Amino acid sequence: MLKTHSTPDPASAGRPAVDAALFREGMSRVAAAVHVVTTDGTAGRAGFTATAVTPVTDDPASLLVCVNASGRTAKALIANGVFCVNTLGIGDVPVADAFAGRANLQGQDRFALGTWGVLETGAPLLLSSLVAFDCRLDDARLVASHYVIVGRIVGVRLGEEQPALAHQGRLYHRI
Amino acid sequence: MLKTHSTPDPASAGRPAVDAALFREGMSRVAAAVHVVTTDGTAGRAGFTATAVTPVTDDPASLLVCVNASGRTAKALIANGVFCVNTLGIGDVPVADAFAGRANLQGQDRFALGTWGVLETGAPLLLSSLVAFDCRLDDARLVASHYVIVGRIVGVRLGEEQPALAHQGRLYHRI
Repeated sequence: MLKTHSTPDPASAGRPAVDAALFREGMSRVAAAVHVVTTDGTAGRAGFTATAVTPVTDDPASLLVCVNASGRTAKALIANGVFCVNTLGIGDVPVADAFAGRANLQGQDRFALGTWGVLETGAPLLLSSLVAFDCRLDDARLVASHYVIVGRIVGVRLGEEQPALAHQGRLYHRI
Repeated sequence: MLKTHSTPDPASAGRPAVDAALFREGMSRVAAAVHVVTTDGTAGRAGFTATAVTPVTDDPASLLVCVNASGRTAKALIANGVFCVNTLGIGDVPVADAFAGRANLQGQDRFALGTWGVLETGAPLLLSSLVAFDCRLDDARLVASHYVIVGRIVGVRLGEEQPALAHQGRLYHRI
């Protein structure tokens, strides 16, 4: 039996999207830099490994990060209102693994790997990073399971030149 | 040699962020996949080369693209309400250059390079792409000079396996 539903707009939010497995397979082909995004403040220190980071505009210098809304880091980042995006070089695979939860290190213990400092916001800066962007939270918008977080960049630190770390095809690569 | 730059007084939202040249230098170190984002519909066919693309969530499968709000493509994409993100393989550097405005081809003429099809939305699909994500516009939010465009993915096409094209340090790379 056919049912007719009034669908005035084909772009309606009710339309099914592609399934998660196909989405992930497709996205695994998209190369990306590897970052560790950190925060510190009254809600505590936290961090996670991210590839979903992009610049937004250069005036004012801004970037965005997508982060799972259910995690502790998202909550801490939003409560603290500051974060640092540390873009990793090839030498920091162990740090990437730790902050992705692949090294059996929880919470604060992850910061035992790497050498850390701060710029102006107090969010942890990985001293070996290829570049770090110190940010103040401008906006956090929930899109289903994830926040799209826009940060105003208040400090940039160019680290020592080195090959960049990228991720593609479910593998790390040196660029 | 390490360089550290930051603005002196973070607390005031009215203060300038880091300058555009430093932002661009920092972002040039961030590796990214290279995509051609296309649209078609009542507002016409258009496309541009983008690196500011990230997945957002897998349920519903969604991605986002940052696009300069002043360009013709942004206006067409929003008016058409559909777009296709074509993630390029190593063979499509000429297409990347053309849609970045580096090949002396304007507007429609850019589509003379490459072989194109469509999935469900009608936005041009580059048949040689490593993967393509066919999207319906979910949201377009203006952040200063750029739109952050969230798309609901309604189709994914996995192209032939091939090395991915990445951009880092102001150069193309093969991954």
